[in-house]
Amino acid sequence: MTAPYRLHYAPDNASLVIRLALEDMGLPYETMLVDRTSRAQDSAAYRALNPAGLIPVLETPQGPIFETAAILLWLADTHGQLAPAPADPARGAFLKWLFFASNTLHADMRMLFYPDKYIAEAQVETLRTGLRPRLRAHLALLDAVAAGAPDWLSPATPSILSWYLACLMRWLALYPQDSDRSWFAATDTPHLHRILAALETRPATRATQVAEGLGDTPFTAPHHANPPEGSAT
Amino acid sequence: MTAPYRLHYAPDNASLVIRLALEDMGLPYETMLVDRTSRAQDSAAYRALNPAGLIPVLETPQGPIFETAAILLWLADTHGQLAPAPADPARGAFLKWLFFASNTLHADMRMLFYPDKYIAEAQVETLRTGLRPRLRAHLALLDAVAAGAPDWLSPATPSILSWYLACLMRWLALYPQDSDRSWFAATDTPHLHRILAALETRPATRATQVAEGLGDTPFTAPHHANPPEGSAT
Repeated sequence: MTAPYRLHYAPDNASLVIRLALEDMGLPYETMLVDRTSRAQDSAAYRALNPAGLIPVLETPQGPIFETAAILLWLADTHGQLAPAPADPARGAFLKWLFFASNTLHADMRMLFYPDKYIAEAQVETLRTGLRPRLRAHLALLDAVAAGAPDWLSPATPSILSWYLACLMRWLALYPQDSDRSWFAATDTPHLHRILAALETRPATRATQVAEGLGDTPFTAPHHANPPEGSAT
Repeated sequence: MTAPYRLHYAPDNASLVIRLALEDMGLPYETMLVDRTSRAQDSAAYRALNPAGLIPVLETPQGPIFETAAILLWLADTHGQLAPAPADPARGAFLKWLFFASNTLHADMRMLFYPDKYIAEAQVETLRTGLRPRLRAHLALLDAVAAGAPDWLSPATPSILSWYLACLMRWLALYPQDSDRSWFAATDTPHLHRILAALETRPATRATQVAEGLGDTPFTAPHHANPPEGSAT
């Protein structure tokens, strides 16, 4: 690698969160497209980087890291940016909501978007019906945290958690394409919505809009990506 | 509090992982039983500690922390024990599997154990049928990591991840009581099984066996808990 980091990405996939964090931290990186249309994430070469076969992977001088939130936390701690440091009194509060976002909000979204990985086709919409009120409740909890405007979840200061949530909310507005999305509106969680609007003004968002074809207002009023390379579906 | 930490716990619940970590780190703590039979975790007092209404919560001098893996990581970093430190070259590898355990293995187990939180009663077993091969695959990935015996997933040295996995595998052997569990055997993942056997010899396990009535061999051949206070169901 010529850069310290290589991001294996697909447009508008979970790798988007990592790109935004790398951009906002001002870190040099190179990218490698994972061609989802040919299921490149299932190839032996890709599984050597991530045996779970999921996007993203970030290659680092210490080896490949995967799991979106793990990469985010590792980058934040390694570069001392976008998260309370381990010794910061806010670290515990930050960590509990980072894990909540990863193992509850994001985990439930994986089921909403890819229910066939969990249940037979005939039950897909039944599962989705059960997930939507859960997702609304998760977002309401996070909005209540954002109402308190801690440094790590505030319009004034970006964090790896605010970038993560901005992408998750983008995807809830756009996906799944073949199912009801009327239950979701970013404005239903006004404190989170203010954070999304603030993130849209940052140079990291603009750089990523170009790289992945996200269009204007990618968080507050998103449209499907029109990426210069690869496919967003 | 007279101790620096207060663990809100229910016998053989997710709080078990935190108790084991506190014991293995040699940290003083007090416990408070959450009476699940009266749904105490839904009370206003408990939700003031964790608005998600889940067990465990660890009260700390920096406020209440919840999410099992968040508490584990915070304790490890705060006390410099049972995990690679943030500057350790192994940190990235450790974090990716900690998050995987939390947001994939544990998240899928929540559905297996509490499917009614996701889907209607009539589809519960259908969902469980879809989850079992996923769980086997998750455990196989972790067993392959354990085969390499990194310091943070090895019989020789406990870590917050090895304690976490020991409890998750205990619960897969015991729950759900009303559904098939024949698909699971700890010996199917021999490298993880060796870690479980090693953890059973540690003083932390013996202290926790007494406190929560876990009986002998709580990880390699578990029986239902017979706790001195509270109920394990």
